[in-house]
Amino acid sequence: MCRWMAWFGQPVLIEELLFNTQHGIVDQSLHSRMGAEPTNGDGFGMGWYGAGEGPAVYHAVAPAWADANLRELASHIESHLFLVHVRAAIGSPVQQTNCHPFRRGRWLFVHNGYVADFHALRRDLMIAIDPALFPEVHGSTDTEVVFHLALTFGLEDDPIGALEQTVGLIEETARRNGTECLVQGTFGISDGATLWAVRYATEGTPRSLFASADVKAIQHLQPDNPRFERLTPDDRVIVSEPFSDLPGMWQEIPPSTAATVRPGGVLEEKPFVPRAAPVPASAPA
Amino acid sequence: MCRWMAWFGQPVLIEELLFNTQHGIVDQSLHSRMGAEPTNGDGFGMGWYGAGEGPAVYHAVAPAWADANLRELASHIESHLFLVHVRAAIGSPVQQTNCHPFRRGRWLFVHNGYVADFHALRRDLMIAIDPALFPEVHGSTDTEVVFHLALTFGLEDDPIGALEQTVGLIEETARRNGTECLVQGTFGISDGATLWAVRYATEGTPRSLFASADVKAIQHLQPDNPRFERLTPDDRVIVSEPFSDLPGMWQEIPPSTAATVRPGGVLEEKPFVPRAAPVPASAPA
Amino acid sequence: MCRWMAWFGQPVLIEELLFNTQHGIVDQSLHSRMGAEPTNGDGFGMGWYGAGEGPAVYHAVAPAWADANLRELASHIESHLFLVHVRAAIGSPVQQTNCHPFRRGRWLFVHNGYVADFHALRRDLMIAIDPALFPEVHGSTDTEVVFHLALTFGLEDDPIGALEQTVGLIEETARRNGTECLVQGTFGISDGATLWAVRYATEGTPRSLFASADVKAIQHLQPDNPRFERLTPDDRVIVSEPFSDLPGMWQEIPPSTAATVRPGGVLEEKPFVPRAAPVPASAPA
Amino acid sequence: MCRWMAWFGQPVLIEELLFNTQHGIVDQSLHSRMGAEPTNGDGFGMGWYGAGEGPAVYHAVAPAWADANLRELASHIESHLFLVHVRAAIGSPVQQTNCHPFRRGRWLFVHNGYVADFHALRRDLMIAIDPALFPEVHGSTDTEVVFHLALTFGLEDDPIGALEQTVGLIEETARRNGTECLVQGTFGISDGATLWAVRYATEGTPRSLFASADVKAIQHLQPDNPRFERLTPDDRVIVSEPFSDLPGMWQEIPPSTAATVRPGGVLEEKPFVPRAAPVPASAPA
Repeated sequence: MCRWMAWFGQPVLIEELLFNTQHGIVDQSLHSRMGAEPTNGDGFGMGWYGAGEGPAVYHAVAPAWADANLRELASHIESHLFLVHVRAAIGSPVQQTNCHPFRRGRWLFVHNGYVADFHALRRDLMIAIDPALFPEVHGSTDTEVVFHLALTFGLEDDPIGALEQTVGLIEETARRNGTECLVQGTFGISDGATLWAVRYATEGTPRSLFASADVKAIQHLQPDNPRFERLTPDDRVIVSEPFSDLPGMWQEIPPSTAATVRPGGVLEEKPFVPRAAPVPASAPA
Repeated sequence: MCRWMAWFGQPVLIEELLFNTQHGIVDQSLHSRMGAEPTNGDGFGMGWYGAGEGPAVYHAVAPAWADANLRELASHIESHLFLVHVRAAIGSPVQQTNCHPFRRGRWLFVHNGYVADFHALRRDLMIAIDPALFPEVHGSTDTEVVFHLALTFGLEDDPIGALEQTVGLIEETARRNGTECLVQGTFGISDGATLWAVRYATEGTPRSLFASADVKAIQHLQPDNPRFERLTPDDRVIVSEPFSDLPGMWQEIPPSTAATVRPGGVLEEKPFVPRAAPVPASAPA
Repeated sequence: MCRWMAWFGQPVLIEELLFNTQHGIVDQSLHSRMGAEPTNGDGFGMGWYGAGEGPAVYHAVAPAWADANLRELASHIESHLFLVHVRAAIGSPVQQTNCHPFRRGRWLFVHNGYVADFHALRRDLMIAIDPALFPEVHGSTDTEVVFHLALTFGLEDDPIGALEQTVGLIEETARRNGTECLVQGTFGISDGATLWAVRYATEGTPRSLFASADVKAIQHLQPDNPRFERLTPDDRVIVSEPFSDLPGMWQEIPPSTAATVRPGGVLEEKPFVPRAAPVPASAPA
Repeated sequence: MCRWMAWFGQPVLIEELLFNTQHGIVDQSLHSRMGAEPTNGDGFGMGWYGAGEGPAVYHAVAPAWADANLRELASHIESHLFLVHVRAAIGSPVQQTNCHPFRRGRWLFVHNGYVADFHALRRDLMIAIDPALFPEVHGSTDTEVVFHLALTFGLEDDPIGALEQTVGLIEETARRNGTECLVQGTFGISDGATLWAVRYATEGTPRSLFASADVKAIQHLQPDNPRFERLTPDDRVIVSEPFSDLPGMWQEIPPSTAATVRPGGVLEEKPFVPRAAPVPASAPA
């Protein structure tokens, strides 16, 4: 049920991380080792910051491993901050509007996991979205609704706080509906200047999430690659699943944790604590 | 902004109407003469009654003129009742979940036209959908919302009455929101045993809609086609736009009219009168 | 690298074999157990005999497991003889013209396996195709070239003999070019009245291939399905990989064997012996 | 039958030419005024020089007007030299391998027009392709064959000379086959350092082709756009069809002419004279 990765550091050709890396995200689309499903072939998406206004997104319904355009773009676009997501649909259609990353203004949002019983909760959750944002929901995934709830709760001012309120609202709504109150997954968020990564599950172990340990670890991945020799301590990678099997290379992000990656490669972790909030004033009674 | 056609009569290979006819619906996808736009290339759909349970639907994002599978299906599927729709998207994404016909159980639904300011009304209209039906809205078109409102208002018992209430609700909601209260278009509905066609606009002239005049008219279309020589008075075609330019072949369905085609080729017309209804009990206060 | 199945018997809704069966071909597209690759997600195709002239083909670039139209067609089309193929591309693009079954006139052709070093042999093999057939090669797979060579060698008169000559020519051409002379795979061929299945490899064990053992075996698959209770001894299924794990249900088709399924469920096997033939007179010197 | 454009000058966001221009190439995909067909909706492609090795290509089967990814890429990729092509298929399938630009190494190639009776000539023309290049032909268009013939005749050393030999060979082959010897169209070629544009027809008037007259003309297009205020005399645009109807803005490239655009905006024209050449030594007797 999906895999994602994020790069934040010096500008690199995206292919360095997508195709020139052992067990990179494209390989994970075909042969995931740690995911709930080995195959993540139900479309994919890439969002990056670079030339032009705000982030670009490329969404495709083909499996990532088979998309000729992805190889082209990855080998001809340089970015200092990008997110890539490969999807395993669980019920919702394979269409571009269901592909991550979701975007609003400068913001990108990806998710690996699910809202349990989303089908039953969807209406209540959509009603809680700020009416001004409601028409921007074009697809049918739980993630797009989560993103617009987080926007409703102030993601653009405090992304982690807004996501804590969103998850709190979903858990509260689920309980009220007598459905199983499970939010499961990892989330990646960015505004182009900072990168946030959250790992959380209402119950049980959340989906896996790792951060690159330090520059030396990354350089170890491709010792002969001159790009990586030039890596600086500014560079960080966040992944659902490590790129290679070499031990000691990645640090696991603990459950119920929000990690913040700031410019300069600074990685901070703090607890992620959902809290039910009153529906914001902009939403209807 | 879209073209559609419906056949109800004896079983025919679908290609007879789609490809073997002068200025058929596939040609209209590339060169519409009476539509708001000459090109209807933003996906298409076909729904038919035949083998298996209920109607089948085939939805594709390619233009109808370029879809190799459509030629295959049309030349190898026989049906006594089918609807085909070619789309000109006006803002909403080109994806299969936005392709007509929409379906629920035995019911098919197509639409040519629009709900003005749908973007602004979407939330209010979706809240008025029966909560049990809400999760079935997978796309982002106005038509899918109209269909689910009509289902909410009892389409399965009284399709024209339910559509009158739906259009009434939309007009009322639009007025309340201070937006332009325009519902524009033609609608095709079937349950496999009866075919309904509606032509209506809140203001001005609605999109064009025609019914085949009588069997002789249809036979005139393809005088050398042995299939058509065998046509019986049971056969009726409904079209957004006539298949050929020969005069006297088609009868226009008047504005504000609901036509009912029953088995045996019986065609009845009655006024279509929207009326604002209280939101049904199954929807929330 | 690919999986396929064929049904020849009484007319059934295609979904009975595709979706209502344990570990059917659509499940094999996601989780093949006996294939060279577990994932066969690079497009698929279905060819069937029924209404209309000759066989219909439906080709799609989406993975079979994710294609909403496949479920629709399978549950609304009845056929007495159909072939379904799910593809794992090995180098050639994922496009409809590379999807099996290939068709000419009444003939359908599917293949699981490969021609080794096809890239190097492609020109020589294409030159050996009857010039009148050459323009009909629209894609870039080895299989399409094999099919057109077999047509050149008289597939429409003697399908197995023509395939023996084709494989002989490929092996001879490979040897002459100093490349590895490996033809590997299984082939399915039909004209709507007979079904042929071939299992062969120049060296080593060919890809797996099975025939349903007898009617009781098939009924065992779905004991509670009223359709299958009505099965007659006329019904045969050929599969790359058994639908279920129950032992004793399927008989393996031996290597270097051509199986012929005739009306009435008659299954005959004979040796498959490639033989290099002079290039037919219709091809250039 | 297709439209294309090329930009060569200072780096710009591609959207400036594709979307922010009156009657740009994307608008021409829906409403061409000077093309053989008003609709060029059978896929499109974009090739550009920028970051990474050699040119990138993006090919899509959707109509250009409906492709959300094209808007994303165009508004986030900067390039000093790019070609965009919108396709109206005439017989060959709508698939990515049939989309222009075609590429080899640093070279891009686009074409508007056709080789008459290509179906009949295809085999002879493909046999004339250098056997080492033969396996690189993945699609089924005339243009891809023309490109590989030109590569065979030395396009990488002398693009115009190679194209003259290619057209000569096609005309000679056509005459030998007794078919109508018509090559029709315009061609765009680049290696990232120079841009070539050819306008030619064996008989009659070739497809239209224009070059931007001078910097002032381009600035006139968008007087209020600060990007264009910064235009230098280095900048040139080549188009099948002018971006706007303002007279005096574009200079027509005459029939039977090859135009060369060099760095610094230098535009040279010389006659384009096809000449039948002996098939090069690398091709078989």
